[in-house]
Amino acid sequence: MTKRIAILGAGPSGLAQLRAFQSAKEKGEDIPEIVCFEKQDDWGGLWNYTWRTGVDQYGEPVHGSMYRYLWSNGPKEGLEFADYSFEEHFGKQIASYPPREVLFDYIKGRVEKAGVRDLIRFETVVRHVEKIDGKFHVTVCDLPNDREYTEEFDHVICATGHFSTPNVPEFKGFDKFPGRVLHAHDFRDAVEFKDQDILIIGTSYSAEDIGSQCWKYGCKSVTVSHRTAPMGFKWPDNWQEVPLLTHVDGNTAHFKDGTSKDIDAILLCTGYQHHFPFMEDALRLRTANRLATADLYKGVAWVHDPDLFYLGMQDQWFTFNMFDAQAWWVRDAIMGKIQIPGKAEMEKDVADRVAREDAGEDDYAAIEYQAEYIKELISETDYPSFDVDGATEAFFAWKGHKKEDIMTFRNNSYKSVITGTMAPKHHTPWKDALDDSLEVYLQN
Amino acid sequence: MTKRIAILGAGPSGLAQLRAFQSAKEKGEDIPEIVCFEKQDDWGGLWNYTWRTGVDQYGEPVHGSMYRYLWSNGPKEGLEFADYSFEEHFGKQIASYPPREVLFDYIKGRVEKAGVRDLIRFETVVRHVEKIDGKFHVTVCDLPNDREYTEEFDHVICATGHFSTPNVPEFKGFDKFPGRVLHAHDFRDAVEFKDQDILIIGTSYSAEDIGSQCWKYGCKSVTVSHRTAPMGFKWPDNWQEVPLLTHVDGNTAHFKDGTSKDIDAILLCTGYQHHFPFMEDALRLRTANRLATADLYKGVAWVHDPDLFYLGMQDQWFTFNMFDAQAWWVRDAIMGKIQIPGKAEMEKDVADRVAREDAGEDDYAAIEYQAEYIKELISETDYPSFDVDGATEAFFAWKGHKKEDIMTFRNNSYKSVITGTMAPKHHTPWKDALDDSLEVYLQN
Ligand SMILES: Cc1cc2nc3c(=O)[nH]c(=O)nc-3n(C[C@H](O)[C@H](O)[C@H](O)COP(=O)(O)OP(=O)(O)OC[C@H]3O[C@@H](n4cnc5c(N)ncnc54)[C@H](O)[C@@H]3O)c2cc1C
Ligand SMILES: Cc1cc2nc3c(=O)[nH]c(=O)nc-3n(C[C@H](O)[C@H](O)[C@H](O)COP(=O)(O)OP(=O)(O)OC[C@H]3O[C@@H](n4cnc5c(N)ncnc54)[C@H](O)[C@@H]3O)c2cc1C
Ligand SMILES: NC(=O)c1ccc[n+]([C@@H]2O[C@H](COP(=O)([O-])OP(=O)(O)OC[C@H]3O[C@@H](n4cnc5c(N)ncnc54)[C@H](OP(=O)(O)O)[C@@H]3O)[C@@H](O)[C@H]2O)c1
Ligand SMILES: NC(=O)c1ccc[n+]([C@@H]2O[C@H](COP(=O)([O-])OP(=O)(O)OC[C@H]3O[C@@H](n4cnc5c(N)ncnc54)[C@H](OP(=O)(O)O)[C@@H]3O)[C@@H](O)[C@H]2O)c1
Repeated sequence: MTKRIAILGAGPSGLAQLRAFQSAKEKGEDIPEIVCFEKQDDWGGLWNYTWRTGVDQYGEPVHGSMYRYLWSNGPKEGLEFADYSFEEHFGKQIASYPPREVLFDYIKGRVEKAGVRDLIRFETVVRHVEKIDGKFHVTVCDLPNDREYTEEFDHVICATGHFSTPNVPEFKGFDKFPGRVLHAHDFRDAVEFKDQDILIIGTSYSAEDIGSQCWKYGCKSVTVSHRTAPMGFKWPDNWQEVPLLTHVDGNTAHFKDGTSKDIDAILLCTGYQHHFPFMEDALRLRTANRLATADLYKGVAWVHDPDLFYLGMQDQWFTFNMFDAQAWWVRDAIMGKIQIPGKAEMEKDVADRVAREDAGEDDYAAIEYQAEYIKELISETDYPSFDVDGATEAFFAWKGHKKEDIMTFRNNSYKSVITGTMAPKHHTPWKDALDDSLEVYLQN
Repeated sequence: MTKRIAILGAGPSGLAQLRAFQSAKEKGEDIPEIVCFEKQDDWGGLWNYTWRTGVDQYGEPVHGSMYRYLWSNGPKEGLEFADYSFEEHFGKQIASYPPREVLFDYIKGRVEKAGVRDLIRFETVVRHVEKIDGKFHVTVCDLPNDREYTEEFDHVICATGHFSTPNVPEFKGFDKFPGRVLHAHDFRDAVEFKDQDILIIGTSYSAEDIGSQCWKYGCKSVTVSHRTAPMGFKWPDNWQEVPLLTHVDGNTAHFKDGTSKDIDAILLCTGYQHHFPFMEDALRLRTANRLATADLYKGVAWVHDPDLFYLGMQDQWFTFNMFDAQAWWVRDAIMGKIQIPGKAEMEKDVADRVAREDAGEDDYAAIEYQAEYIKELISETDYPSFDVDGATEAFFAWKGHKKEDIMTFRNNSYKSVITGTMAPKHHTPWKDALDDSLEVYLQN
C-alpha cells in the first residue's frame, strides 16, 4: 500500500517538500500519496501578504508577519533555488534585494511550473496531530464550512514556520501607555508612524528593518532599546540606541541608564516563538531559535519518532535553498533511500551540532556553519549541487555593506551562484524607492 | 459517585455558575465536583483589561475586547446581582455608569466572598472537547508549563463568551491603505487617534462608543459608515454618518452614495463571531448573535445533548443578572431538580423563542422579551427574585436619555431594583471625566 504523507503548511518549506516529491515523480519514481494542509487561502507562507492583524476572518491567528514595503534583508543570491533561477523566472537577471511582492512571485513560479497546487487543501487549519497505533491522526478544520475531520497518515512533515507567533514581553506601564503598543508581527504600514517619536525594543532584523522603514517614511525619531548590546550601525541623526527599557510612565519611557524619552508608539521587535499548539505533547518541538535546533536529527527528523519531520525550524541565514536541502533529504528518508539510525545515534548527531554551533565565535562562523549544513544534506540527495561557498561570500559581502552604511546596503549587487550572472544595480536607491511594486522593481 | 462538572471560562458567566453551585453548598446541599478552566491569569473575562492585542504571551488569541476609558454603556441598575448589591460591595450607593475598573471590582467582590477561586485552573486553555461513551473528554493545555492533559466530565458548561472573536470584513483597497486598519476588538486607547480623521464601519454599540471615546479624547473627525441604517443620534459637529464604504483608494474612502472622505485610520466595529474551535463538530454551537439562540433549550441546554450547556450566548441587553438566572437554572438541571424534556419538546421550545423574538417590533420589545426570559428562569430556581420590570424601566429611561443627547446620557442616574436606593449623580460629566480610575469614580 502506498504511504500517506501529510505536509503541514504551504509556505516556502512546505512548497519545497511538494517540489521535492514532484521532482522524484518526474524522474519516474513512485511517490507516496501527499496531502498538504494550509490555513491561508493561498500559498507562500509569510510571503503571502495580508493587511489583517490579530485573528483572521475565521478567528484563527493571522500567520503573516510581513509588512508593506518589505524588501529582502539579505541578497537574493543567498537564497536562489538551485533548480529554478531568478533568470528562468523573470526572463532576465534582477537586482539583489527584491521587495516582498517580487520574491513572492518567484516562489510561486517554481511550484506553478511543478503543478503541485492540487495537492494542497487551502483554508484548512491543522487542529490536532497525535500518533495512535503507528499512525498519525491529523485533525483539521475546513474553515469556510466550519467542519472538522480526521485522516490517518504514515508520516507528518511539519512546515508551519516559526516567525509567526510573537514573543511579547510586558514592561511596567504598558497598561497605561497612551498610544499604540504593538509587536513587529502586527506592524503593517510605516506611514502610520509618520511624524511620531517611536520606541523600538530589540536589536535584531525586525528592529533594524522596521526602524529603517519608519525612518524612510518620515517618522520623527527612532529610539532603539537593547537588552544585550546596541546594533552599532551608523544611524541617521534622528536615531539613537539606548539601554533596556525599565518602565513607561504616561508617554515617557525610562531606560536602565536613568535616561528617558517621550514617545508616541512602542514597537516590540522581540522575536518569535516556536509554537505548535496542534501537536500532542509527545510530538511537540520545543526549541530555542538557533541553528542547531533541539531534538531534530539532521535538523529535520524528530529524534523521539523519526516518522515525524520538521522543516525550516532553524534560525535562518540561508532560507529557500536550505528548505530545499531539507525537503529533498526528508523525501529520501521517507522513500527509504536514506536510512535513519537508532535513537542514540540521532541524539549524538543533535548534541554534535549544538557543540559545533556553540564553538562558533561570530556571525561569520554562523553563516559558514549553516552553509556546511546545507552541503551535508545536499550531498546525500540528488538536489542540484551548487556553489554554496559562493552564496556564503554574498552573505559576507552583505555584512560588510551593512557596516559601511545601513541605509544604502540594499543598493549593492552580487553574482548568482546558480547562473553565474551579475545582478544589475537597482534603478533607484532603496531610500528613495517609495513604490516597491513588482512592475516598478523590474524596470531595470 | 459524585458527578464531575467542567466550566469553561471564568468571565461573568462562568463565575455566575461557580457562585450558583456554592450557594447550594452553603445551604447544605451536596454539589458535584467542579473544575473551571480559564485561559487568562485572572478572572472577570472581558472585564479583565489587557493592553495586549493579537495573541498573548503564550501565543493564544487575546480574549479582551475592552479598552481603556470604557464606561458601562447601560445603567448598572440593569445588571445588578440580586444576591450582592452595589451597596454591599462598595459600602454605599454609586453613580449609574461605572467605568470598567469599577465593574470589574464589583464582579470580583461577589466571588471573593463566595470563596470559589480555588476551583479555577488559570492559564489553562481548553483545546478540545469531545464526547466518548457518555463522558466528555476535555483536553486542555497548562500554558506556563506547555503541557496538555485530558480529563473526563459528566457535564460541560461552556461560558467562553462571544464578544471576543472579531468579525472582520474586507473592503477593496484595505491592502494598500496607508494607515491603521483595526477591528474594535484591538482598539485600546483613544489617544492614539488624537487629531486624526477616523472612519468607523458599523452602527452598533462599539461604533457608538468608540466614536464617542475618540471624540472625547480629541480626534479631528468621526465618519461612521452604515450597512443598514444610520444611528441617528444628535452627534457633535465634527461627526457625520454616511452610507456603506465601497472601497478605499490610497487614503480616500468612497461610499455608496458617491461621496468620499480622506481618512487616517479605519476602525471596523463590525461585531463578533460565536467561535468555539475547541468543540467537536457535534457539540459546536452555531448561532447568529440574537436573543433566541439556535439549538439551546431554555437558552442554555444543548438540544442535541443536554448534558452540555452554554451560558451567556444571547445578544445582551441584560448581562450579569441574566447569566445568574441561567447559571442557577443549569445548576438545578445538573442536580436533578429540574427535568429536561425530550428532544422534540426542546426543539419546540427553541422554535417558540425564535418566533416570539421575531414578532417583536423594536428595541423596547427586545428588552421586554429578554426580561421575560429572565423572569421565566428565576421562577424555576431559588435565585433571589427581584424587580425585573424595574430594571426594564431603567433600560427604557436609558434609551430616552441617549436619544436626548448621546454625549450626556451617562450623567443620569437610576434607582436600584435590589436595594431601592437612588444612585447619586456622578461628580463630573462623562465628557469631562478624563480620569476614570476606581478611586476617582468613587469620590462622590
Ligand atoms: C518579517 C519577516 C521578514 C522576513 N524576510 C525574509 C527575507 O527577506 N529573506 C528571507 O530569505 N527570509 C525572510 N524571512 C524568513 C522566513 O522565515 C522565510 O523566508 C520563510 O517564509 C519560511 O518559510 P516556512 O515555510 O518555513 O514558514 P512560513 O513562511 O511561516 O509558512 C508556514 C505556513 O504554514 C501555515 N500554517 C501555520 N500554522 C498552520 C496550521 N495550524 N494549519 C495549517 N497551516 C498552517 C501558514 O499559514 C504558512 O503558510 C522573514 C521573516 C519575517 C518574519
Ligand atoms: C467592548 C465591550 C464592552 C462591553 N460593555 C459592557 C457593559 O458596559 N455592560 C455590560 O453589562 N456588558 C458589557 N459587555 C458585554 C459582555 O459580554 C458581558 O458583560 C460579559 O463580559 C460576558 O461574560 P461571559 O462570561 O459570558 O464572557 P466573557 O466576559 O467573554 O468571558 C469568557 C471567559 O472565557 C475565557 N475563555 C475563552 N476561551 C477559552 C478557552 N478556550 N479556554 C479557557 N478559557 C477560555 C476567557 O478568557 C474569558 O475569561 C461588553 C462587551 C464588549 C465586547
Ligand atoms: N526582510 C527583512 O527585511 C526582515 C525584516 C524583519 C525580520 N526579518 C526576519 O525575521 C526573522 C525574525 O527576526 P526578529 O528580529 O523578529 O527576531 P530575532 O532575530 O529572534 O530577534 C529578537 C530580538 O528581540 C530581543 N528580545 C527578545 N526578548 C526580549 C526582551 N524580553 N526584552 C528585550 N529584548 C528582547 C532579542 O534581544 P537579545 O539579543 O538580547 O536576545 C533580539 O534582539 C529573521 O529571520 C529575520 O531575518 C526579515
Ligand atoms: N460598555 C460599552 O460602552 C460598550 C462598548 C462597545 C461594545 N459594547 C458591547 O459589545 C457587544 C458587541 O457590540 P458591537 O457593536 O461590537 O457588535 P454588534 O452589536 O453585533 O454590531 C455589529 C455591527 O457591525 C455591522 N456589520 C457587521 N458586518 C458588517 C459588514 N460586513 N459591513 C458593514 N457593517 C457590518 C452591523 O451592521 P448591521 O446593522 O447592518 O448588521 C452592526 O452595526 C454588545 O454587547 C455591546 O453592548 C459595550
